Amino acid sequence: MKHCITIADFTPEQINHILDVAIALRDQRASGRGNDPILKGQTLAMLFEKPSLRTRVSFEQAMYELGGNAIVLSNSEVGLGKRESVADVTRVLAGMVDGVAARVFEHTKLTEMADNTSMPIINMLSDYSHPCQALADIMTLIDEFGRDLAGRTLTYIGDGNNVALSLASICSKLGINFSIATPVGYELPQTEVDAILAHNPAFKFKASTSPADVVKDTDAIYTDTWVSMGQEEEKAQRLKEFDGFQINDELLAQAPDHAIVLHCLPAYRGIEITDSVMDGPRSRVFPEAHNRLHAQKGVLAVLMGNQ
Amino acid sequence: MKHCITIADFTPEQINHILDVAIALRDQRASGRGNDPILKGQTLAMLFEKPSLRTRVSFEQAMYELGGNAIVLSNSEVGLGKRESVADVTRVLAGMVDGVAARVFEHTKLTEMADNTSMPIINMLSDYSHPCQALADIMTLIDEFGRDLAGRTLTYIGDGNNVALSLASICSKLGINFSIATPVGYELPQTEVDAILAHNPAFKFKASTSPADVVKDTDAIYTDTWVSMGQEEEKAQRLKEFDGFQINDELLAQAPDHAIVLHCLPAYRGIEITDSVMDGPRSRVFPEAHNRLHAQKGVLAVLMGNQ
Amino acid sequence: MKHCITIADFTPEQINHILDVAIALRDQRASGRGNDPILKGQTLAMLFEKPSLRTRVSFEQAMYELGGNAIVLSNSEVGLGKRESVADVTRVLAGMVDGVAARVFEHTKLTEMADNTSMPIINMLSDYSHPCQALADIMTLIDEFGRDLAGRTLTYIGDGNNVALSLASICSKLGINFSIATPVGYELPQTEVDAILAHNPAFKFKASTSPADVVKDTDAIYTDTWVSMGQEEEKAQRLKEFDGFQINDELLAQAPDHAIVLHCLPAYRGIEITDSVMDGPRSRVFPEAHNRLHAQKGVLAVLMGNQ
Repeated sequence: MKHCITIADFTPEQINHILDVAIALRDQRASGRGNDPILKGQTLAMLFEKPSLRTRVSFEQAMYELGGNAIVLSNSEVGLGKRESVADVTRVLAGMVDGVAARVFEHTKLTEMADNTSMPIINMLSDYSHPCQALADIMTLIDEFGRDLAGRTLTYIGDGNNVALSLASICSKLGINFSIATPVGYELPQTEVDAILAHNPAFKFKASTSPADVVKDTDAIYTDTWVSMGQEEEKAQRLKEFDGFQINDELLAQAPDHAIVLHCLPAYRGIEITDSVMDGPRSRVFPEAHNRLHAQKGVLAVLMGNQ
Repeated sequence: MKHCITIADFTPEQINHILDVAIALRDQRASGRGNDPILKGQTLAMLFEKPSLRTRVSFEQAMYELGGNAIVLSNSEVGLGKRESVADVTRVLAGMVDGVAARVFEHTKLTEMADNTSMPIINMLSDYSHPCQALADIMTLIDEFGRDLAGRTLTYIGDGNNVALSLASICSKLGINFSIATPVGYELPQTEVDAILAHNPAFKFKASTSPADVVKDTDAIYTDTWVSMGQEEEKAQRLKEFDGFQINDELLAQAPDHAIVLHCLPAYRGIEITDSVMDGPRSRVFPEAHNRLHAQKGVLAVLMGNQ
Repeated sequence: MKHCITIADFTPEQINHILDVAIALRDQRASGRGNDPILKGQTLAMLFEKPSLRTRVSFEQAMYELGGNAIVLSNSEVGLGKRESVADVTRVLAGMVDGVAARVFEHTKLTEMADNTSMPIINMLSDYSHPCQALADIMTLIDEFGRDLAGRTLTYIGDGNNVALSLASICSKLGINFSIATPVGYELPQTEVDAILAHNPAFKFKASTSPADVVKDTDAIYTDTWVSMGQEEEKAQRLKEFDGFQINDELLAQAPDHAIVLHCLPAYRGIEITDSVMDGPRSRVFPEAHNRLHAQKGVLAVLMGNQ
């Protein structure tokens, strides 16, 4: 395990190892003594092509709590692939810091980084995948349903985007069933679904265009914003096409009583999710956000701290 | 004492306690050994809706000198109340960091934060108040006139803004007389003055539209810029209306010889204050700026460090 | 040695001392134990009027590795000389931090800072000079040719800019010959060259408008971008006028076999330097970039750490 770029790169054992380390570090933190400084003297450079709150704070705080340091760089400072080639930026950083985490528009920038260095490259969100979010989400399922999630079902409702794809991928690795309801035209890319199924033919995957169809038999209902950064121009069109895909009390009433609700945030309350669900008893949205800190500690500890 | 949002929320005892802690920490720093790491392992998230030099550096440095960590977030990363609700941002941060300091346009964002968390919320400047500046200013008066300021007079000349209001508020708490001269139309809000007087009917408060009228009997003369960030369009109009309110040698000659001059900075030299006063023997402007670091250490140590 | 503003301010002994400290710190780091925390408890404020990757990361990381802290400020936070006078900003910072490093458009802002404080002021690039880059470049020559560089020749090809001037200056101090080829109109300022020669009449300086003319007898060939930040409007004109000044295999074939290639980066591959040269066996471009970290540690350790 050298990098953390997509879930697909990991074996189930590697994913479980990261989760185990993350949970152990969370327990250690909760003890009140703080974490062991396993990244003492190490620096993570964090490159943001688009701004972020949760990812920024959780990674920077994770480095601090593990005894290390973070240097946060915005696009005006890096100009990745514009002012300077991705490879050159990577080679320069490799002589100064110990790892790079990047939030990029084009996923290929991450793979190009990884091709040019032996230091860890971590995906903080790309147009293609969001592995650290998926790890935090699985941690939240573990908190609810226990360490073995095989046979459980995660249901995603909304846009078949990078978050949805990483969830499908991690579910296929861990024996979790995955169902998804999207409007027509917003499905997960078929080539990606085919690749996941080719790799694990036993993966129970179900796609639908009806939310009611997928919530009946599930353990967790997940959604994301319908309009991501950079899609503001399509907003009116999207809101129209996603009509009926809101996570609200009516939809939730059709799900099993024990099913919880997740959202990777930020939430547009009243759009893809109602206040009543977000603030209701089945919401695990905020513990899920907090698990970003812990899951990423697992990634950092494994990749940079030899855990 | 859970938060630091307005001076009005504090009792005189609480204000004095913060000042005592601040002075003790300043003494400890001056000894050359550095401060005890009383915030070791703790992180303050700092949210800036508008940029800042003094506040930014003094808070970040205060956290560092107390053994803690600061994560600085700009508005593009947070989108407070726009990209994500204030309550949601607060709840997410509460699971990752130990306190939040915010510079906001609308004061209500601070109270909304405080309503949604038990971690300390600290006001780094709002349209309504600037409590940390007021604490640093009182520290500067203590440096000049001793620990007991009861019966002293602080005189503010200029715009009856958030800084002026926090000064009036802290003076009423500590038995310091407060006089203010503003152009017509730039007075302190009468409802705010009424509230302060209702709370402390013994407060000696004097308002005037004549600078000469208020400088005759005072211990300290204070001013602030006439054109704050966001008021650039009104600049020409304001410069005209504030004509005659400049702190200059002529005005200073009418004040008692021992009266000192304060300014919260940045100063527009030649506008609200002359070079000769700013750089003259009665200016305490730079020690006042440095006291931002120490006063805020007092706030942080009390709210986050159980001092 | 109080500040690091231009190479011209240093004696040869001072330059050699910084280089010796830098090399010792690099050796210490390479041992795997990390550097001694010689800047423990100290903070460097870093002011950027224009954004930066290499300088930003190398200085921030240098402070971290030496046990200190860095506070990074962008122009929106400082408004150096616009929102607040340079002198006032400097005096405020002097009460909170231990040193200031600044990347400015106008070099005079650095000298004005130095005139107003006794804390170290460090030039992170101005329109006039780039001393920290020059120190890293000399370190790279030492890595190649040994500690005594007297009699070696450094050849600069391209724009007679701030980087070129600092290189000429440091070469004159260390007994290194310096040759430069620029298009007509892009020569080093004659007054600057005259000043260097007046100070050291023995300095072997050669200026030409023909790259072929200067590469025949040299130990290192150096270039920089032809279009710096802020010169984007002149881009088409510059590309035309710099035609023939590219560092490519053809030009390199005319240089001695042992001559290495340097570039301060970012490189515009295919413009001022070809991929084949940049990635070829004679390129020392990336070790040179990494030496930024080490050379600046030398500066910081000497100015702030009494080394």
